[in-house]
Amino acid sequence: MKNALITGGTSGIGLGIAGHFAANGYNLLVNGLERNGADIAKELAAEYKVKVVFSSANLMHPEQIREMVQQAEQELGQVDVLVNNAGIQYVAPVDEFPEDKWDAILAVNLSSSFHTSKAVWKGMKERKFGRIINIASAHALRASEFKAAYVAAKHGIAGLTKVLALEGAPYNITCNAICPGYVRTPLVEAQISDQAKAHQMSEADVIEKVMLKKQPVKQFVDVCAIAQMALLLASPMSSQLTGTMMPIDGGWSAQ
Amino acid sequence: MKNALITGGTSGIGLGIAGHFAANGYNLLVNGLERNGADIAKELAAEYKVKVVFSSANLMHPEQIREMVQQAEQELGQVDVLVNNAGIQYVAPVDEFPEDKWDAILAVNLSSSFHTSKAVWKGMKERKFGRIINIASAHALRASEFKAAYVAAKHGIAGLTKVLALEGAPYNITCNAICPGYVRTPLVEAQISDQAKAHQMSEADVIEKVMLKKQPVKQFVDVCAIAQMALLLASPMSSQLTGTMMPIDGGWSAQ
Amino acid sequence: MKNALITGGTSGIGLGIAGHFAANGYNLLVNGLERNGADIAKELAAEYKVKVVFSSANLMHPEQIREMVQQAEQELGQVDVLVNNAGIQYVAPVDEFPEDKWDAILAVNLSSSFHTSKAVWKGMKERKFGRIINIASAHALRASEFKAAYVAAKHGIAGLTKVLALEGAPYNITCNAICPGYVRTPLVEAQISDQAKAHQMSEADVIEKVMLKKQPVKQFVDVCAIAQMALLLASPMSSQLTGTMMPIDGGWSAQ
Amino acid sequence: MKNALITGGTSGIGLGIAGHFAANGYNLLVNGLERNGADIAKELAAEYKVKVVFSSANLMHPEQIREMVQQAEQELGQVDVLVNNAGIQYVAPVDEFPEDKWDAILAVNLSSSFHTSKAVWKGMKERKFGRIINIASAHALRASEFKAAYVAAKHGIAGLTKVLALEGAPYNITCNAICPGYVRTPLVEAQISDQAKAHQMSEADVIEKVMLKKQPVKQFVDVCAIAQMALLLASPMSSQLTGTMMPIDGGWSAQ
Repeated sequence: MKNALITGGTSGIGLGIAGHFAANGYNLLVNGLERNGADIAKELAAEYKVKVVFSSANLMHPEQIREMVQQAEQELGQVDVLVNNAGIQYVAPVDEFPEDKWDAILAVNLSSSFHTSKAVWKGMKERKFGRIINIASAHALRASEFKAAYVAAKHGIAGLTKVLALEGAPYNITCNAICPGYVRTPLVEAQISDQAKAHQMSEADVIEKVMLKKQPVKQFVDVCAIAQMALLLASPMSSQLTGTMMPIDGGWSAQ
Repeated sequence: MKNALITGGTSGIGLGIAGHFAANGYNLLVNGLERNGADIAKELAAEYKVKVVFSSANLMHPEQIREMVQQAEQELGQVDVLVNNAGIQYVAPVDEFPEDKWDAILAVNLSSSFHTSKAVWKGMKERKFGRIINIASAHALRASEFKAAYVAAKHGIAGLTKVLALEGAPYNITCNAICPGYVRTPLVEAQISDQAKAHQMSEADVIEKVMLKKQPVKQFVDVCAIAQMALLLASPMSSQLTGTMMPIDGGWSAQ
Repeated sequence: MKNALITGGTSGIGLGIAGHFAANGYNLLVNGLERNGADIAKELAAEYKVKVVFSSANLMHPEQIREMVQQAEQELGQVDVLVNNAGIQYVAPVDEFPEDKWDAILAVNLSSSFHTSKAVWKGMKERKFGRIINIASAHALRASEFKAAYVAAKHGIAGLTKVLALEGAPYNITCNAICPGYVRTPLVEAQISDQAKAHQMSEADVIEKVMLKKQPVKQFVDVCAIAQMALLLASPMSSQLTGTMMPIDGGWSAQ
Repeated sequence: MKNALITGGTSGIGLGIAGHFAANGYNLLVNGLERNGADIAKELAAEYKVKVVFSSANLMHPEQIREMVQQAEQELGQVDVLVNNAGIQYVAPVDEFPEDKWDAILAVNLSSSFHTSKAVWKGMKERKFGRIINIASAHALRASEFKAAYVAAKHGIAGLTKVLALEGAPYNITCNAICPGYVRTPLVEAQISDQAKAHQMSEADVIEKVMLKKQPVKQFVDVCAIAQMALLLASPMSSQLTGTMMPIDGGWSAQ
């Protein structure tokens, strides 16, 4: 039986991944800032008959990250798969972009993955098995206006992914990034109805012409597709699959 | 039940993919130039209890490609998944590179995928489902000396992949490329022992220092990993996964 | 004094490059299919006080390419800089894309650059100096619908560029590709007024919303910018600048 | 007459760029931590007959960055060209990589470019002219072992470059990154002799087999080539050249 630690695993994409990993027999540590995080963990455990531990570590603080990994190692035994999924966003023109937002986005979306990876590395190296999966974004490969911090952090994750792949190569530790386009999370859901009102457009038009403007396939990316890719990357079979950016973006990066 | 057409499906990577697709319930048309191709098809059919048709179409000839697709449509009913896998290689410095080799490599490794895709397109469009999977190469993303035609053709496939992804977007036709590093096929096997003798090195050293020089993970790429990725791409779930290059190259393209 | 051979050098981008090279003291062979090609060569020679030779070689025929290079070597002495610029286009959905158009585009936009490079290689190698500059396209990096052959050929050029860079490294032969977005050539000029009539839009709107839809900088790419980059790449100073794709695309490939 | 602000402009690559810009008539603000920075500025001014201002701003501190930009705007009048060149390095396996080094490298190599760009943006936008040139690295595109922070920060710069290109498009502000391979700076010079002693190799062998292992062209990248590219990017002519990564890496990223 394998164990996975999933940051931001109590909502959105992370929760979707958590469900798929649990359904495939993984024990989990799910991390998140939700007040009911412990309940979410219990529900996952009950539904899929696996062990699920919760951590409310705030990923802006490296010492909390280290404690989270220790908790996982103590309560699950070891961390075989690390899914760096947590992320935050802020949108503003560069000349108005607040410094504290820049710092926070770099801390959560980039530095936290360095800290988690560093913390799990020793164990993975000793056991000669590790799978680090970064949930990056199409913005790890392409830019959009007004997202200076997010795009910089996600590109940074692409760089970190490649370094960890090279350093992990002798130890059967792989590191890859999945690069999704827009996914229909609760946050996005709210934006759709807001924008529909603001632009006096139908919700369908907001989705196709505004939100999915850059995605030729006019559907939000399915969390299941992301989770299936993560499971493939996590598999023992995928030893030679490392250092890659895997877009699931409806054709965005092809054009 | 789904049907897949696999070019070069009677040996090497293609045969590996064929086995995995058959094991997952796909009926197949496998194409190849082996004299015993029909027997290989029969064996696959017997082992996996699926229908397997053989075509000896020579992919240098567009009319034979069209006949192959017609054969698949007649004998299997339709082509849901097209795996463009067949490829040839020739190695020489550019100033000595024979013109006929250039032409042959472009014909088989690039143009044949245009012809197969064009031939299956109408049916996929009508049924609003299609999955085109190009078995490209790390050489679709990076170059090596003395492989002018191969690298040009494989980069060309990357371009074709992206165009087909964009054109297929409204019809639930996806197109992706898998980009493997070196795989231990019978052809490669022979090269190992030859080079070991030529360089007076052990076979292990030939593999690590010569053949896998560019791959930080010092293992050949496993055909199963390629086949699993192909199955993921072929899945109905993967509608938003299109226009991508998926390296499985032991970290080659990361460095 | 240096010599440059420029395919497609009698019109559009190629003529612009020819002018800039002549203005910088290069003797030239310009190639093209224009009936008045010899006159264009004479005008260039007269304006810039350099030697300009004309070749009407049809780049679909390798033997004509070889003769063209021989002509340059005989009349100019040697070829120091090769600018592979000639290109053709055809636009159609993949299921309607004519085979002969596919073949012609691959021949002119991809294979001809192999043949020219092969033909100049020996001399460049002997003299330990060579600069091969491929005028590719943003379509060497990204795709658009209905341009299967063009995008495949231009991606193929990217691959060839990288191989030649690696093979040329020991001999001070560099090879790079410039990847322009849309340039205001006479051909494009005609399309603007046609589309303005067809869509009942102003010409300015056709440019901004149709033609430059993918280019955040809402201006056509200036031929001078392409020519200046080509001159930089051609410089003896640029010995370590090789194997690259240089987009000049108004931000297209960034998003 | 134009003005350029160059971070890290008092040594290494930055000083080389400063010299070329001064030689082309730019007034400069050069920034650096050298004690004799003011003298270096005076020498540049004397040699090239331009105005050269010095700033000892420590780029780890955003308020010092803002003061530096104010100083440039007051003493030079305005900033037309911003060259983000300063960078630091630290090399260690990920599990031993110190947190303070990670933070410092992200601050200097990534965040400082956000702060400088933000500070010059308003003026560039008003004047409808701006050129931001990030001296990134081949490590903005590819990874090496033991350089987690550096590679992450440089990839991050690639992302920031693309965002600024998109946001700057309506205002004739371009942003590009130059991605050099190894350059023979004083720091590298010292490493060569150290490594020659450590490995008991000749200095020539250290250069070819150790330092330039990844660069097929076995020469360090010439600072002049970087400076010439920067001048081209800074030119008013380069309005459509934006959002790009320009490798000058001896073929590293091609293979």
